[in-house]
Amino acid sequence: MASLMEDEVFRSFAKYAAIVTVKLLLMGPLTAYYRITRKAFANPEDAAAHSSKPEEKKQLVRTNEDVERARRCHQNDLESIVPFVLVGLLYALTGPDPSWALLHFRVFVCSRLVHTVAYMMALPQPSRGLSWAVGFMTTLSMAHTVIHSVVFH
Amino acid sequence: MASLMEDEVFRSFAKYAAIVTVKLLLMGPLTAYYRITRKAFANPEDAAAHSSKPEEKKQLVRTNEDVERARRCHQNDLESIVPFVLVGLLYALTGPDPSWALLHFRVFVCSRLVHTVAYMMALPQPSRGLSWAVGFMTTLSMAHTVIHSVVFH
Amino acid sequence: MASLMEDEVFRSFAKYAAIVTVKLLLMGPLTAYYRITRKAFANPEDAAAHSSKPEEKKQLVRTNEDVERARRCHQNDLESIVPFVLVGLLYALTGPDPSWALLHFRVFVCSRLVHTVAYMMALPQPSRGLSWAVGFMTTLSMAHTVIHSVVFH
Repeated sequence: MASLMEDEVFRSFAKYAAIVTVKLLLMGPLTAYYRITRKAFANPEDAAAHSSKPEEKKQLVRTNEDVERARRCHQNDLESIVPFVLVGLLYALTGPDPSWALLHFRVFVCSRLVHTVAYMMALPQPSRGLSWAVGFMTTLSMAHTVIHSVVFH
Repeated sequence: MASLMEDEVFRSFAKYAAIVTVKLLLMGPLTAYYRITRKAFANPEDAAAHSSKPEEKKQLVRTNEDVERARRCHQNDLESIVPFVLVGLLYALTGPDPSWALLHFRVFVCSRLVHTVAYMMALPQPSRGLSWAVGFMTTLSMAHTVIHSVVFH
Repeated sequence: MASLMEDEVFRSFAKYAAIVTVKLLLMGPLTAYYRITRKAFANPEDAAAHSSKPEEKKQLVRTNEDVERARRCHQNDLESIVPFVLVGLLYALTGPDPSWALLHFRVFVCSRLVHTVAYMMALPQPSRGLSWAVGFMTTLSMAHTVIHSVVFH
């Protein structure tokens, strides 16, 4: 049963996949932090919980640029990190070279950390675009290995 | 091949992961139901299929609060349930204690059912926030076990 | 270690899952293409990188219907393809009939290709709705097999 976890590449994958998925999950509390400090809520019942004046409740259902930025960063994480974990799992099972696999996992995780910093701090482009592209290419490279491995072996 | 499915923890994981992913999938038809009954569509071609008067078609491309609420609930499911399944799969492979693992899976699935009811019925906070937090902590606990298991064993 | 990849059904799953996840990933560059050609950006720093006139930068942070259509298609992919890969992985481990499993994988991938064409070309309904429903039923069928397999065996 634990045989997958005895494999060096699969263990590395599990560690980096868990780390980068936790990073994705933390975007939820970050968005909530901005919603509460900026008093910008998506639902009337949320605004009601953060306002004592009845007339103020409707006004707090509004958008805020800090909240929207965190939401866009979260969405990009969903679009990038979830495919990485899905493809990476299959990639780890193709028996890749351990050091080459580790390079893929580490480059991806680094690219997403840089991407989050570039997004949340609104750093000038192409910082965010490049960090996104590095992660994108890493996942494509792993997908290529999976498809090649199934078709040609 | 079927050896993973002979493992007690992995079988439990497979069952609960399938159930909670079906719950996520059902948010699609629910949103479609609200779009059709509230006549609020995202695309002109959808509005055209639900309107016989040409002048009405443009007006039906609009937002509706019931539709938007279902979409926000669906989005929160994507942000919570997908990480649970990804991390839970790796967690099930670390060989955890079966009853402890089962508790994680059951608590998570219950938390998401309560979250959906709280969201769609607009129950007063902190009902939705607490149900979200329980699911969040469950996934973090499994991610901690995965990382700990890889790093220290 | 490579034993999963020696299984016929799992190999098929890996191939189709990788193909359809790459299709999901490609929606990112497609959205970026529309943002750049339509000059409609989500962030001020993106607009600044595509405009030489300072007064123009603020105006380029705007929505565009082509961009929004690509984003809706991307979102539907996230909501459909990710559950397919998650459920399909568990399904492949239940030891299904190979030709029946292959039918599920191929029908799903085809349904999503048709869905993307129908969405991006704004084909009249019910073309997009039907292609979505076929993929949806395929994933539900696999989820049913997973749950049935765990509960009754």
